[in-house]
Amino acid sequence: MQASKRYDAVTFGEIMLRLSPPGTQRFAQSTVFEKQTGGAELNVAMGLAALGLRPAVVSRLPDNEISRYLARQIQAGGVSGECLIYDADPNARLGIYYYESGAAPRKPSVVYDRKNSAVNHISPREIPDELYSQARLFHTCGISLALGGAVRQTAAEMMHRFKQAGALVSFDVNYRANLWGEEEARAAIEDILPLVDILFISEETSRRMFQKQGELKDIMKSYCAQYGVQVVATTQRQVISPQKHHFGSLIYGAQEDVFFTEEPYRDIQVIDRIGSGDAFVAGALFGLLQYGDLQRSVEYGNAMAALKNTVTGDLPCTSLQEVNAVIAAHHGGGVQSEMNR
Amino acid sequence: MQASKRYDAVTFGEIMLRLSPPGTQRFAQSTVFEKQTGGAELNVAMGLAALGLRPAVVSRLPDNEISRYLARQIQAGGVSGECLIYDADPNARLGIYYYESGAAPRKPSVVYDRKNSAVNHISPREIPDELYSQARLFHTCGISLALGGAVRQTAAEMMHRFKQAGALVSFDVNYRANLWGEEEARAAIEDILPLVDILFISEETSRRMFQKQGELKDIMKSYCAQYGVQVVATTQRQVISPQKHHFGSLIYGAQEDVFFTEEPYRDIQVIDRIGSGDAFVAGALFGLLQYGDLQRSVEYGNAMAALKNTVTGDLPCTSLQEVNAVIAAHHGGGVQSEMNR
Amino acid sequence: MQASKRYDAVTFGEIMLRLSPPGTQRFAQSTVFEKQTGGAELNVAMGLAALGLRPAVVSRLPDNEISRYLARQIQAGGVSGECLIYDADPNARLGIYYYESGAAPRKPSVVYDRKNSAVNHISPREIPDELYSQARLFHTCGISLALGGAVRQTAAEMMHRFKQAGALVSFDVNYRANLWGEEEARAAIEDILPLVDILFISEETSRRMFQKQGELKDIMKSYCAQYGVQVVATTQRQVISPQKHHFGSLIYGAQEDVFFTEEPYRDIQVIDRIGSGDAFVAGALFGLLQYGDLQRSVEYGNAMAALKNTVTGDLPCTSLQEVNAVIAAHHGGGVQSEMNR
Amino acid sequence: MQASKRYDAVTFGEIMLRLSPPGTQRFAQSTVFEKQTGGAELNVAMGLAALGLRPAVVSRLPDNEISRYLARQIQAGGVSGECLIYDADPNARLGIYYYESGAAPRKPSVVYDRKNSAVNHISPREIPDELYSQARLFHTCGISLALGGAVRQTAAEMMHRFKQAGALVSFDVNYRANLWGEEEARAAIEDILPLVDILFISEETSRRMFQKQGELKDIMKSYCAQYGVQVVATTQRQVISPQKHHFGSLIYGAQEDVFFTEEPYRDIQVIDRIGSGDAFVAGALFGLLQYGDLQRSVEYGNAMAALKNTVTGDLPCTSLQEVNAVIAAHHGGGVQSEMNR
Amino acid sequence: MQASKRYDAVTFGEIMLRLSPPGTQRFAQSTVFEKQTGGAELNVAMGLAALGLRPAVVSRLPDNEISRYLARQIQAGGVSGECLIYDADPNARLGIYYYESGAAPRKPSVVYDRKNSAVNHISPREIPDELYSQARLFHTCGISLALGGAVRQTAAEMMHRFKQAGALVSFDVNYRANLWGEEEARAAIEDILPLVDILFISEETSRRMFQKQGELKDIMKSYCAQYGVQVVATTQRQVISPQKHHFGSLIYGAQEDVFFTEEPYRDIQVIDRIGSGDAFVAGALFGLLQYGDLQRSVEYGNAMAALKNTVTGDLPCTSLQEVNAVIAAHHGGGVQSEMNR
Amino acid sequence: MQASKRYDAVTFGEIMLRLSPPGTQRFAQSTVFEKQTGGAELNVAMGLAALGLRPAVVSRLPDNEISRYLARQIQAGGVSGECLIYDADPNARLGIYYYESGAAPRKPSVVYDRKNSAVNHISPREIPDELYSQARLFHTCGISLALGGAVRQTAAEMMHRFKQAGALVSFDVNYRANLWGEEEARAAIEDILPLVDILFISEETSRRMFQKQGELKDIMKSYCAQYGVQVVATTQRQVISPQKHHFGSLIYGAQEDVFFTEEPYRDIQVIDRIGSGDAFVAGALFGLLQYGDLQRSVEYGNAMAALKNTVTGDLPCTSLQEVNAVIAAHHGGGVQSEMNR
Repeated sequence: MQASKRYDAVTFGEIMLRLSPPGTQRFAQSTVFEKQTGGAELNVAMGLAALGLRPAVVSRLPDNEISRYLARQIQAGGVSGECLIYDADPNARLGIYYYESGAAPRKPSVVYDRKNSAVNHISPREIPDELYSQARLFHTCGISLALGGAVRQTAAEMMHRFKQAGALVSFDVNYRANLWGEEEARAAIEDILPLVDILFISEETSRRMFQKQGELKDIMKSYCAQYGVQVVATTQRQVISPQKHHFGSLIYGAQEDVFFTEEPYRDIQVIDRIGSGDAFVAGALFGLLQYGDLQRSVEYGNAMAALKNTVTGDLPCTSLQEVNAVIAAHHGGGVQSEMNR
Repeated sequence: MQASKRYDAVTFGEIMLRLSPPGTQRFAQSTVFEKQTGGAELNVAMGLAALGLRPAVVSRLPDNEISRYLARQIQAGGVSGECLIYDADPNARLGIYYYESGAAPRKPSVVYDRKNSAVNHISPREIPDELYSQARLFHTCGISLALGGAVRQTAAEMMHRFKQAGALVSFDVNYRANLWGEEEARAAIEDILPLVDILFISEETSRRMFQKQGELKDIMKSYCAQYGVQVVATTQRQVISPQKHHFGSLIYGAQEDVFFTEEPYRDIQVIDRIGSGDAFVAGALFGLLQYGDLQRSVEYGNAMAALKNTVTGDLPCTSLQEVNAVIAAHHGGGVQSEMNR
Repeated sequence: MQASKRYDAVTFGEIMLRLSPPGTQRFAQSTVFEKQTGGAELNVAMGLAALGLRPAVVSRLPDNEISRYLARQIQAGGVSGECLIYDADPNARLGIYYYESGAAPRKPSVVYDRKNSAVNHISPREIPDELYSQARLFHTCGISLALGGAVRQTAAEMMHRFKQAGALVSFDVNYRANLWGEEEARAAIEDILPLVDILFISEETSRRMFQKQGELKDIMKSYCAQYGVQVVATTQRQVISPQKHHFGSLIYGAQEDVFFTEEPYRDIQVIDRIGSGDAFVAGALFGLLQYGDLQRSVEYGNAMAALKNTVTGDLPCTSLQEVNAVIAAHHGGGVQSEMNR
Repeated sequence: MQASKRYDAVTFGEIMLRLSPPGTQRFAQSTVFEKQTGGAELNVAMGLAALGLRPAVVSRLPDNEISRYLARQIQAGGVSGECLIYDADPNARLGIYYYESGAAPRKPSVVYDRKNSAVNHISPREIPDELYSQARLFHTCGISLALGGAVRQTAAEMMHRFKQAGALVSFDVNYRANLWGEEEARAAIEDILPLVDILFISEETSRRMFQKQGELKDIMKSYCAQYGVQVVATTQRQVISPQKHHFGSLIYGAQEDVFFTEEPYRDIQVIDRIGSGDAFVAGALFGLLQYGDLQRSVEYGNAMAALKNTVTGDLPCTSLQEVNAVIAAHHGGGVQSEMNR
Repeated sequence: MQASKRYDAVTFGEIMLRLSPPGTQRFAQSTVFEKQTGGAELNVAMGLAALGLRPAVVSRLPDNEISRYLARQIQAGGVSGECLIYDADPNARLGIYYYESGAAPRKPSVVYDRKNSAVNHISPREIPDELYSQARLFHTCGISLALGGAVRQTAAEMMHRFKQAGALVSFDVNYRANLWGEEEARAAIEDILPLVDILFISEETSRRMFQKQGELKDIMKSYCAQYGVQVVATTQRQVISPQKHHFGSLIYGAQEDVFFTEEPYRDIQVIDRIGSGDAFVAGALFGLLQYGDLQRSVEYGNAMAALKNTVTGDLPCTSLQEVNAVIAAHHGGGVQSEMNR
Repeated sequence: MQASKRYDAVTFGEIMLRLSPPGTQRFAQSTVFEKQTGGAELNVAMGLAALGLRPAVVSRLPDNEISRYLARQIQAGGVSGECLIYDADPNARLGIYYYESGAAPRKPSVVYDRKNSAVNHISPREIPDELYSQARLFHTCGISLALGGAVRQTAAEMMHRFKQAGALVSFDVNYRANLWGEEEARAAIEDILPLVDILFISEETSRRMFQKQGELKDIMKSYCAQYGVQVVATTQRQVISPQKHHFGSLIYGAQEDVFFTEEPYRDIQVIDRIGSGDAFVAGALFGLLQYGDLQRSVEYGNAMAALKNTVTGDLPCTSLQEVNAVIAAHHGGGVQSEMNR
């Protein structure tokens, strides 16, 4: 019955232009910036599209040629651009972030220039009523709450309206200390947690922001008890160096009262780690939407995150076929070919 | 006596990051942006440095690595970075403009994102008192007035203070319809015209904004009569196509009561026309500062403008030696070599 | 009533990977190829999407990552990828053409490698029946007939079926001497001409292939009399050099019995002339579909062709807003700004 | 006496255009392809030329500018292009393969488009009779047999004719499961094994295709006993990650009845692993042709394979001087400089 | 009888590494240099090879990897690298020249760094005696005389020895004011003119260096009368702008006592003018060597020069097939296609 | 009192143009060279400027546009270009070195072309007398002695004159076996050691050139006893592979009679190791000049060296803020963020 909805998922959040020096170059060295498109909730939508689902992203952009570039990237990846709202004010601006990769002992580095971007002037009234009935799932993240004002208000209203319309509501806490303090964040997140069906939250955030203590598993379960969350997912990234990570995850299903996990991916060759958390969210939601199976959520989530790390840019660049092959190889057994021919 | 001052010229205005698709690519096509540094008053300072003078630029930038890139470009060209003011607020931002070249019948195109940039929070108090006695000439342009608020106030105060301290005051009207209306512009410019020694104004602006009528020469003279301006310069650009321009100019010296001009440069191969007006200003000011000779102002101004058109970016990339050679070849006579070996 | 159809236009034809040395480099010099996407009928669909209509393209591609690149480009430009048919045979291949730009007296040069590509194994049965009722217009061109076999058969059947379903049928003769002889071409085209509502044919082809004589206008009218064509369009390109063309056109409307034309665009700065004829078709069809006005067809057709020449690749890269601005500037009057700010 | 022959070696096989996204980019991301030249038997000839021998390659290419690029690369590396056969048919095509590098857990990936390429229309009659007496050694590999038809027939005939003319015959089994099945392969290879003097075969192929069992050394010896092979070489590659391999080898000389080996190269930094097996063949044949010494075959083979892994493209890019230095460093002893100055 | 010689032509002169900023960038701007290979006499050899002849170049290079790059380029173009002499002295160096393209009114610019390069330490004894009997023609130019010392001595001795051995001797005066004065040049050239069969000299050099007066035709004839030259060729380049030239030539054959010429090529789109004079020499020599026809010398010379101007680098990048097509189009008549498909 | 001097440090030595293939490409492969600026003593000055001090570099360059590029880079990084001496002789040349990175088992490789460069014609008289009183510290290295002749003489005289004028004298032995033999080096260095306050010398050089034996610490102390050196610094680099190094150091202060050290940086991701020793010198001198604290010298030296390894080119590209952050992270404690946001 769900399949009759127009979109498998709608996500909401800011879409930014990312500008990066090529390869290992530094901000102060490079003579060009590579243009990338990013934004936590867009990244999730792009991951779902890569896996074959039909997502749309809601955001607000200035009505200019730079936005057109972003819109082209979004459509190229199979996410519908129909829900993008354009601001014709000549002073409307696009949020930008500058990203430089690292090389040990030098860390990757981000410079933000996202204040006053067009999405901050969004109004819930700009979102057509009929959209709420057209998605199986709605996803947003803590960044949208952190932006405050109209963005926070719109995010909250969309969670309400989608919930009312029978969609699943997914939320990734995604705490960014440069956007807000832990106290403000906790208050704002606690406000919307009762609306959340699927919660993504890191162990560190649970312990620091929500001051949870004890075993990780108990902490994860506590969100279900407290707020009625159905699924809680926590990723486990281990940073060996800017170019080498391990990645695994743990997902709790309240209904089944079961924890799902698998062996982490080890020695991932990290080309660009930005967006790998969002790729995990996409994979996990895919497992749920496509199979209703949280073990598959772990597997698709981990594989998507591992693969995202191996490509440049915030956006995943993969296909269901490739993800399935990576999962199969990860579960291994048998002879492993060195190359796909 | 002037030579004992630390700077031959100080200019004030916004410095922006320019982002351009390479070559003839379009905003929506290119996967990279070329990073350029620009800003009308910076461009003038860079032109003066290329000709061997010692200029400084006053501006205000966020204290981050992207600004550092700009500062490096500024220093590379020989303009002192000592007068740059850095804003440590993490929300401080750099003005950006996106520039795409044209190909007939497609015009070059600019998208601005300069609102709320760090320079808009400048205060005249940030400029050290001793600076005013250390320059032979101060230059700013109408864009600084158009930005309004603190920038306009600072520009006006600097004109006053430099004038008081015995520096020449140079002003380029540089009207930008996308920044302010003609009426507001006229009022603001009329306020500062009594401070101006050297005025750069286009014929079109004279006729439309100042509603001057009659012969161009009479119009130019009228600024001297009305406001006490000493030198009035007007450039004459003829756009054959985005890749081919002619460029000439007319300069009036009130003291001598003489008009100076020369044959325009024809069939300039335009690689990037941005900043060619500012290069003219630099050349004209050089003629005045170095030789006190307005005929040389015409010649250096025209040659600088012609040369700027042949290089990518807002900034001139030349040397006194090259400019002299171009002037000599323009005045021609004798066999012209096809190549400099 | 038409607006209720899902697509404004459906086009059918081969989609190829174009590989070109960058800039002015030669095949034997360059160490990289730029990847472009092309195909006459795809180009038309992309032009329609750029102008804001909702087109789809029917074609057949190998099910591999190289096709995925093409599909991304297609979707990026706003053409639906839903009607693309994928061939899972590991030996299925993509048609390729290599393109090198020219510099007088060296001509641009093309090397084709399109034999046995996946589209040649298409069957009309692969096209869903419901598609025929979902488009206001169907377009294909002589290349699809020239490919022969399954492609010709499919093109012809689609013309029949769309005609039956009430769609307009558009056909561009687009004769390519390297694909077939004039005699074979004439026979095949005469077979389908009775199905054609809108015919694009060059004067040279009319005279050589169809052996028409006399005035161009009489020749154009003759297709309406002979085959019941409603609209006949002929472009007039004048090649001054590989980098400079003039472009104009003449369109005849049988119903009105009127010829439409305008001043040609002169001194177009040609960066890449491939696809400019298809861009004309797109503009002309847009005038018809959007306004039912053949004068607008001339204007949009010419402007689209002129603009296409100024961008790299087969595909137009523009917007309705830009095309309108170019038309306005072409019709001139008033002051012409040198730059869009 | 051998030195009086025109070529030290003649190899035969398909030469392909390889198209790769730059660096770590993916097929679906990159806007350019890097052009490389490849083909197992060409790679061997190029390796021999890099080491100072005089090889030629026999292949068949379309008579167009794309082939001209390949011919330039071949000649640049010192392999004679005199034996290349050009097909003037405008439909003649070049085999292509697309190659994308990997980053763990993502594997490198190949897409082939080699069907119907010009080499498939070769005839043994196109090879001049006098060639057979002009080479000290002939080399081809299992890919040429796998291509079947005219290629297999030509490869077999060349083995016969060169053998008759007194040349050594070298054959690399080089099994590719995407080209043919193991059963067909075994039959075809058994047909030509009696002609083979020097056999390159992997342990895996010996065990799976030839169903050999027991110790590797016994397996290797068995080819000498069964088919009269004089030299059997087996490489041992260990894939730690797409960017890190170990590489060693074992060579058996029937005449001496001795196994030759050395410590494998460890922690090779793999930039492009394609062609490293062929580089091994070149090094092994060089040891034999230049020194008649199979221990040197092991050393040159391993060093060539290790070095090939560190450069982009199928072709080795080295010199005898460099290979000797790498061998010396590998055998170590003494202080190892960090850099060659 | 000539065809039995190993080389159609041997040329002698310095081979240099050319380093150029990409496209229209300036020395002071670009972050990379494009690597090109050049040298007047090498350029001639490369032109002959492009047209299908078998040339070799004699020069002297340091024995290092940078030379290896040049040698690869030389071999890639079909010129034999067998006559290159390598200097193993670690202080041996390669001549370099830096080249920047122009854009009116900015001229192209060259910076030389060729002093003390390896060729300056050449000795005639390094050239094997047997080479002299293996070429149909020997070519060198005034630059080799201008370098003085061992280079001048070697050039002169080679002219003697080749002349003795029955080869034609070709000499291009190619005066470079930055290398020597006109007086020294005239004396040195007069010394070798009695050895010259084919002389390339510009009208300007005839008038200034040799102080010839009167009609160009009479001047050209005078070299035959005075020195026994058989063929005198003079090119006529008209520089409209750095990007647009006309090119024609006049050749006098003493035996026939006839002047040969044709309509010049007009509006050549100059991408890189370096080496176009050498390309003319190659074309003219080809006409003579292949057809013994000076009208063909004019035609091949002009076409080669025109084509060279349209490609980057000193070296021609063309083929006999292309040159024939350009000549046919230049002679025109019939319909001219806009593109080679 | 020292702060009143114009420069914190003056360094003297040759400045070279470095030309490198991009990324992992080889000399013989790449079609471009990346332009870098380098020279041991310049590198030190650039490191000091990056840390916020006011250094100048004394060197001698040809008066051409290629030098202008270097001067721009120098000024961009904040080193004064006022002490650069230009040689107007058209034959004056710039020293060049070509650098290719390695990939195990292939080592990085350097080809020098520095003979007869402009610096070799320097005269101490070209250095203005007043400079000697304007610096707190003078630094040069063994390469300047190795160049011999005028360079060695100038270096020695500058050490004397600066010492006399009360500046600290810093000297890095920096032995290069390709420039001179150990015996000549030892004699020359022993001559100037009595002038040296701060000595940088490797353990290997101490043991081989100075034939020191026993414990490293005793060796280091011996320079103070023998020559009156105040500070001796020795770096400890461990090369795991061309892409992975460890780096630490030991500094002895004679006055305090204390050895300073810290945990080495491990697993540095080496992008370009050139200049990391010079970066260490800069950091160590900074610790001394800014804080008079040799423990800070160790820390700044190690951090600067580690960071230099992570950027392309000889020159450091960092800031005091970044170095402080790297030191803090190295000393660790507390949570380590994975990224700087």
